[in-house]
This record gives sequence, structure tokens and C-alpha cells, in this order.
Amino acid sequence: MLSYNVGDQTINTREETSVSNKLAEARLELALANRIVANEGVLDAFGHVSMRHPDNPGRYLLSRSRAPELVSPDDFIEYDLDSKPLRDPGVGQYSERVIHGEIYKARPEVMSVCHHHSPAFMPLLATGTDYLPVFHLGAVGGSKPPFWDQHDEFGDTNMLVIKPEEGASLARALGKHWMVLMRRHGVTVAGTGVRDCVFRTIYAARNAEFQVRAMTIGAITSLSPGETELAGAISAKTTGLTRSWEYWSMRAAKSVGMPALPKKTPAAKRTKPAKRAKTRRR
Amino acid sequence: MLSYNVGDQTINTREETSVSNKLAEARLELALANRIVANEGVLDAFGHVSMRHPDNPGRYLLSRSRAPELVSPDDFIEYDLDSKPLRDPGVGQYSERVIHGEIYKARPEVMSVCHHHSPAFMPLLATGTDYLPVFHLGAVGGSKPPFWDQHDEFGDTNMLVIKPEEGASLARALGKHWMVLMRRHGVTVAGTGVRDCVFRTIYAARNAEFQVRAMTIGAITSLSPGETELAGAISAKTTGLTRSWEYWSMRAAKSVGMPALPKKTPAAKRTKPAKRAKTRRR
Amino acid sequence: MLSYNVGDQTINTREETSVSNKLAEARLELALANRIVANEGVLDAFGHVSMRHPDNPGRYLLSRSRAPELVSPDDFIEYDLDSKPLRDPGVGQYSERVIHGEIYKARPEVMSVCHHHSPAFMPLLATGTDYLPVFHLGAVGGSKPPFWDQHDEFGDTNMLVIKPEEGASLARALGKHWMVLMRRHGVTVAGTGVRDCVFRTIYAARNAEFQVRAMTIGAITSLSPGETELAGAISAKTTGLTRSWEYWSMRAAKSVGMPALPKKTPAAKRTKPAKRAKTRRR
Amino acid sequence: MLSYNVGDQTINTREETSVSNKLAEARLELALANRIVANEGVLDAFGHVSMRHPDNPGRYLLSRSRAPELVSPDDFIEYDLDSKPLRDPGVGQYSERVIHGEIYKARPEVMSVCHHHSPAFMPLLATGTDYLPVFHLGAVGGSKPPFWDQHDEFGDTNMLVIKPEEGASLARALGKHWMVLMRRHGVTVAGTGVRDCVFRTIYAARNAEFQVRAMTIGAITSLSPGETELAGAISAKTTGLTRSWEYWSMRAAKSVGMPALPKKTPAAKRTKPAKRAKTRRR
Repeated sequence: MLSYNVGDQTINTREETSVSNKLAEARLELALANRIVANEGVLDAFGHVSMRHPDNPGRYLLSRSRAPELVSPDDFIEYDLDSKPLRDPGVGQYSERVIHGEIYKARPEVMSVCHHHSPAFMPLLATGTDYLPVFHLGAVGGSKPPFWDQHDEFGDTNMLVIKPEEGASLARALGKHWMVLMRRHGVTVAGTGVRDCVFRTIYAARNAEFQVRAMTIGAITSLSPGETELAGAISAKTTGLTRSWEYWSMRAAKSVGMPALPKKTPAAKRTKPAKRAKTRRR
Repeated sequence: MLSYNVGDQTINTREETSVSNKLAEARLELALANRIVANEGVLDAFGHVSMRHPDNPGRYLLSRSRAPELVSPDDFIEYDLDSKPLRDPGVGQYSERVIHGEIYKARPEVMSVCHHHSPAFMPLLATGTDYLPVFHLGAVGGSKPPFWDQHDEFGDTNMLVIKPEEGASLARALGKHWMVLMRRHGVTVAGTGVRDCVFRTIYAARNAEFQVRAMTIGAITSLSPGETELAGAISAKTTGLTRSWEYWSMRAAKSVGMPALPKKTPAAKRTKPAKRAKTRRR
Repeated sequence: MLSYNVGDQTINTREETSVSNKLAEARLELALANRIVANEGVLDAFGHVSMRHPDNPGRYLLSRSRAPELVSPDDFIEYDLDSKPLRDPGVGQYSERVIHGEIYKARPEVMSVCHHHSPAFMPLLATGTDYLPVFHLGAVGGSKPPFWDQHDEFGDTNMLVIKPEEGASLARALGKHWMVLMRRHGVTVAGTGVRDCVFRTIYAARNAEFQVRAMTIGAITSLSPGETELAGAISAKTTGLTRSWEYWSMRAAKSVGMPALPKKTPAAKRTKPAKRAKTRRR
Repeated sequence: MLSYNVGDQTINTREETSVSNKLAEARLELALANRIVANEGVLDAFGHVSMRHPDNPGRYLLSRSRAPELVSPDDFIEYDLDSKPLRDPGVGQYSERVIHGEIYKARPEVMSVCHHHSPAFMPLLATGTDYLPVFHLGAVGGSKPPFWDQHDEFGDTNMLVIKPEEGASLARALGKHWMVLMRRHGVTVAGTGVRDCVFRTIYAARNAEFQVRAMTIGAITSLSPGETELAGAISAKTTGLTRSWEYWSMRAAKSVGMPALPKKTPAAKRTKPAKRAKTRRR
């Protein structure tokens, strides 16, 4: 059994003897990440958060096809960087997984990726308006991050990023940035870890919402380049990451409409008393 | 007893010996559809989702007069395509049921209809602004779907679509489209099935919200006609429909303020132990 | 004990031997009205719904000073039309009660009054923009209902309507209408009954929200005078009132953060077994 | 054990023998203040409410570094006015605590301070638009309260107010006002007590939201200077403070996602029966 602290709360997950504890912890963290980003209103039935495999940089973990708010540690499929599953998953897969694979391929320092269609960003994406950090926490999205339009290179499509070359094109547009805006579609965010990626995703979405509302009443003064660089480093410090992760985890854990994360299995429960019984017999 | 899977959850409904299992399942799905569309903020005390009768294309099912979030499988009344109830329902009926009947009459391939007054659409309906798909999922509403104004043909009314000729006029305006906007009133959406209709209803409402907010900050670039056609086909695939239906069902099932869908009746419970008792006596 | 049906739910209240059942029912309905209007986001810590006394048109009932979402049937104080309490209430009173008293005095057909500071109306009140019905249900607020500005007649005040002459001035501004807008303050709505008043309050607030958002994207076409008159009569029919009241009641009853309405008292419970015990002894 | 009434509810806290009851009550009130301001949507993972020490005007209480919605009475650290902790707290501290210390130093009558990044204010802060009271309750924020821009005096920073001179600069900008707007960052509010500070914080945020939405549809007419002064005195009266505090406390207490405030400790429970047991033995 794995123990996991969220604030004062201890979340237990099932014992997984065939995988390293590190991987089991990673799966739990990634499930929580998916739920948090959904619970904070950035994801709905669509969108997903992935992580690079903690033991193998040539692989990544991404849930089977289901709404991120419902994702459990057991839902993750292991992919190679060409987004081929390591083994037949026997369940539905996200069609847009090349977004993740191609970014992990192009950017070795990226450890986590989130793709979403956040309502907050839609006005920018539908009008081609540049994202600007309008408060210090919005600096995590950078200043005027790149735009990508699938139509430019691929013409009329169903707009989903499904083919490897579509994913590679998006990864090229992302370049050295941490966020790329996808015209009339959504946003893709990269991070140096799961919590960094979640922090960037949520606070960039907050900033986009503020920016849009600000634009309806006047001309924006955004952060200076120096402020953007200095304030954007906040998600590299553990203080802010820890505080927000504790907060979002508690909200997600208590949220109505969210199935409980797995606790100790009934099987495991049955085993323990049995052992005790034996001891008593001796 | 009917068993119904929503994600990992099993919902049971009462045994109905006088109707086909298919119909009982359809009623349960339709009750869930009404609750989902309400729970996602598209319907409030008013509006309704109907379905064509699964065994008889000349009939349709629509709830008795009550808020859609409270609708149960037993609330559905069977109507012919002239919107006359097959038998005296003995309860209040929706006054606007001809919307459903006249569309089923005009469009044999339509299997489900939703009429609503979604807040997201109101700015478009109050200003006569065309609906435009601004992101890929919004393509399910089409590009510039038709507008209908009851005043054009019928002059001053209480604006409710009550008379058969009013419903027929609306159905003509819908034409070959899947959505028709009703000036200063609401929206009517058609689908090839209940889940398709729900998906179109919810994502068109999301798109309308995004479009309105986008218009406050700049000029919109909507999907190209080719993109709209290709992306609009998403609700014809089961992958997206299943993923979103699971998500919305879980949200509706857990939502505060929503009465439980019927489970096995106490009567049925009492029957089973009795049978067991007999067996034991032998 | 009084039994009260909200949809399928039965709410019980304590036996009140000193008052008529009619009055006890009225108190319960009025408590629910306060909670509903708060739960639907129109009232917060401030604002109130009152009713004319069911047995005496020269009196009205209004809660003691507390947030409307917390109001219980026992909180109501009986006032004469000069807004003097019939007996010393021994608890804090709303300072703005003359709003209610002066309207009941001026308009014999008004049976219920709601005063609120709904967020939906604030943009209209801060800019002096006329309210216009932009969808059929918004017709319950009328077309261009009157504006009243306390400053016009009374100069600089703390803006609360406290003096009888301030209330009388507001009642004059209301005139024959069902809603009066108060510049930089709030709204006051009148109704022919509690449910009519609640319906007008909530749907006028919805309409105000739609109108404001519509104005950000284009020129509004509101209902014609004929449509406004015909559609505005909806709250006079019990169908719509009953459907919405059931819906709002269920939402309020299940709402997180709302204390339970009083059920049968422990005292009453103790009485019943006692009676049964006597019977058994005979 | 300390008993604390929130409406009809009694909240108990643990006995603290080493501190005065007054201080224990103050800690509980301050924990509730943090939760209330978070629960009302003004604070998220960041921001904080402090109070001057009730027994020593040269000290103040501020939580250790955690999201305000999760703050408990035991989380508070005692600081001197140079924002140095009285003893090594052994836990993470807020980096921006000088905001509080420097204001307490400059303004002896200020008893409570709240620093936040409310979404409602962001459009004003990103565009440099003056705050104007657009309804009576918004008068608690004053008319055109001062703006402060960290960049003016300190150039490019990470925008956090961390150095004593940064806090002192902000306190100078606040001057005699009760609220200071921080460009591209947030807001800081002062009050004559915790409830006054919470009231000002929440209603100024409501007003900012109304003002921004009003500006999208027309020219604002704000309160006159006389009205602002008279209406702004509302938070000095206990009536409004008590009514809103009861309301917000109930909402926060029942809010999903909020850990329970401490009740009587198990230790204390064990003590009581023990005493009774002794009595029985005699």
C-alpha cells in the first residue's frame, strides 16, 4: 500500500508489487493532476495531462480515453515517444496522444504536458489575440507565447491533432516556450514536472480570463519583460507549488461529482486479518 | 429490473413487465438526458428533451410538465406526431410539445429533440447575431444555422410555440439543419439519437458562450466550411459521445439538488427474500 | 403539524395552536421564498421578501434582520402598514422595511414584495440603462419599468430607504408597474402573491443578465409591446409557477449551506408516544 | 474549551491553557475570516487575512504558508511589526508578510489587513482604471482609492512585496485610505477589526465586478462624495456586520472542500467521562 499526503489527509492506494513504488506514486500524482485541472474548470469531458515515465525518458504515461475528472491511477497506458502503446491496452485511447509524444521527443527537459480547451482561452483563440501576463502569476504562461494553426500546414481537417506530423508541427511551434495556443482549438502547456505543468496550466487560464475581461474596459498594461521573467520563475520554487497543490487537492478530493481515488483494496483488507489470525493461533 | 452502466456505477431501474426492455432502457436514457442538459446549465425550470419512440417511428416520448432536472423514467408521456397523448395522461403537459412532434413529422432521421433557453445563446438571440463555430467542438451546431422569428408569421403572441402551425413553421425553418435559433426565445436542437442530441446541445451552448465573449474583444475567425463539416462529424463517432456521456452522467448523478433515479422498488425487494425462504423450506 | 409538499418531498413544520393553519402555511411559504431567491443568486446577506398578512390586509410579514437564505418561519415579524411591529419583537429588524409597508399601502392588489441588489441588474443601475425584455420570460419585468433615484428628492443619504417618506416616494415611482429600478442601489419587485413575486424577481434578473451580455455584442431587439403584454401574463398561470416553484424548492432544499426548515419538534414527538401509551393502558 | 456561536450553530475549539481566552477567540475568528474570504471567491491558493494581536498592539497574527481556505486557529504565527516571528515557527511562512507589518506600523487604528488577487479587481488593475462605488455597499472601498505600482520605485521585481521597504512604500500609498490597488498584482484592504476588514474586502470586490460589467455597456454614474461617505459608514454599524458574518460563516461552514474547524479534542473528551466516573465511584 502507498501512502500519500494531501494536507492533513492521507490517501492510500493499492499495493502494486509488479511496479516500483516510484511509478505507483507517479501514477497517483498524475491521476490527481488530471482531476485537479478538471475540477478547477480548465478541462471538461476532453483534454488530458500526461507525464514522462519516471524511470524511462523514452516513454510517457497518458490515461485511456475517459474524462480527466474520472481518471484513476490504473487508467494510465505506457506509450513510447512515437505514441505507440507498449502493449495492447484493450481499451479506448485518446486520439490526440501525439501532442504529448512529439513534445517529449522534441524537449528532453519537459516532464509533463497538458492539452486543454479552457473556456478562459477561447476568446483569445477565436480572435487570434496574443496572451499577455496581466498579473504576476500569469507570468508562468510567458509573454506572447506562440500561436499555431493546424490549417496553415494541413488545410481542412477535423482539427484534431492525430497524425505524428501534426504533433511534430505543434511541437515545433511550441519551440522553447512553455505554452502554445492552438487557433480555434485549445492550448498545450509543458512543464518541468507534473505540479509545475498543473500550476502553469491553471494560472495561465486565470490570467487569460482576467486579460479578456480587462480588454472589455480599456487598454491593458502587461508585465514588463523583466517582471515576466522574474515572476514567471515562481513555479520553480516549491513554496507556491506546495501551497497550491495542497489547496487544489483538497478541493478535488471533496468535490461533488468526483469518484474516490482508490484506497486499500478489499482483497488487501482480507489478507491482513488472516495474517493476524495465524499469529494468534501460534 | 434493468441494469444501466454509467462509468463504474450501476444504476438499476424497476422491472416493467408491460413494456419492452428496449423501451424501459430508452426511458431511463431520456430521463438522464433531461437531467444532464439541466445539470450542465443549459436548461432550468423550462425546456425539455424528447425522443422518438424506439419501437414506433410515429410516436415520441416527452415528460409530463416538470423541470427537466427532476424528470424520472415514469414521467414520460407517449405522443403521436400530432402531439396528442396516446391516452389521457392525467397530469400537466408541456404546452410547447408541438416543437417536438412537428420536427419528428418533417424529419424521419431525427430521433431526439431538445428545446431550451440557454443563457449562453441569449446574446445571439436578442441581437440577431449568427452562430459561428469558434472551436472544433462547436462545429456540431453548424455554421450560421437558421433563425426563426415567431412574430414574422404569427404577429404578437405570448411567444410560446403551442399551435401545430407554429411548430410546423419552426420545423420548416430548421430545414436540413440540426439547430434552429428562435429570436428572443431560445434554441431547438435535433439529433440522430439521444446522446447525439445532448452532445450537440451542450457543445453548441459552450461555443455560443465562447463566441459571445470573443466578440467583446475582437473580430472572430470561425472554422472554415471544410473544418466545420469534418469537425462536426465528431458526434457521429461513439468515442466522444461515450466519453462525454460518462462524464456528464457522473456529474448529474452526484449533483446536489437532483433526486435519485429510481432503483429497485421495495416491493421487488420483498419478493426476493420470500422466494429464498421457500427454497430453504424445501 | 403542517404538511407541505415540494415535488415528491413532504416538509413538515411544527404545530402552531395559537395561529391559523393558513398563517402557518404562509410563514413556511415565505421562508421558502426568501431561501429560493437567495439560492438562485439574486439575494446575498442583504435583501428580503415579504408578504401581506393572509388574514389582515392592513398588516404584512417580514423576517427579523438576518440573511434571507437563513430565514425560518419563526423569524417573521408582523408589521402594520406604517411598518411598526405589532409587538416588540425583541430582535433586530431590517432598516428598509418601509419599502414593503409603503407599497402595500399604495397598492391593495400587491400581496408580496421583494427588495434586492441582484448582480444581474447592477450594470443597468450604475449606468441608468433601461430594462428591456429580451426573451419571453423577461416580459414579467415589463418594458422600461421606472427608475427611482433617492438623491433626486432626498439629496445625499446613506442610500438606504429608511424613512416613511422615502418608502412612499419609491412606491409612487413604482406606480402601476411590477418592478422599480433604484439607481446605484437595487430593485424592488411586487407580485400578486409570493410565487408570482418570486417568479418575477428571478426571471427579471435572468433577463437583466442576458440583456447586459447582449449589449456587449450588438444592438438589442426587445419584445414588441404586444408580445410583452401576452408573454408577461405567464406568471398569472399556475402551470409555470408550479413547475418553477417545485424546481427552485428542490434546489434550495438540497443546497449546501442552507439550514433545514423546521420539522416536527421533539416536544411534538414526545406527545405522540405518550398518547399511544395511554391507549395501550386502557 | 471555547464556545463560538455562528448563527444557530455552536462551534467549539480546544482548551488552550497557556493563552488568554481572548486570544483563542481571536485566532478562531481570524481562521474563519480567512475561510470566509476564500469561500466567497476573493482568495484562492494565495492571499491572506491578518489581525493585530488583541493584547499587544506591537504584534500581529498571520497564518503559516498555506491556502487561506485551509487555515486553522493553530496555524497562526505571532509577528512583531518588522514582520519577524516571535519564535522560530518551524514551518513555511508567507513571503509577503511585510504588507501586514508595515501597515500596522503606519496606521495604529488598523486592526486587520487582507491582501488578495481577486478576479473581480483584475480588469481594473490591468488597465489602471479607478475603482468607483457603483452601489451603496461598494462605498466601503471609498471613491478612487490610491493605485500603487511596485515598478515605480523598485523597477523590475518578481512583483511580490517581500522587502520591508516595499511594504513601507505600499503603506505610504495606502495613506489614510482603507484600500490600495496594486497594479498588475492585487489589492490590500485595511479595517478597524476583522469583521470590518472582511466586509470591506468582500463588498469592494462585489462592487469591482459590477463596475467592470457596467463599463461594458455604458458610462457609469457613481455615488456622490456625500453618499460615499454616508453609505461607507455601514461597516461601522454592527447590524450589517453581524448579518453578513452569520451568512458567510454558515456558507463557509457548510462549503464542500473545507476542512472542519477544530472541535473539542479527543483528549478533552476522555477527561470528562473520567471525572464523571470518579463521581460515581464516591
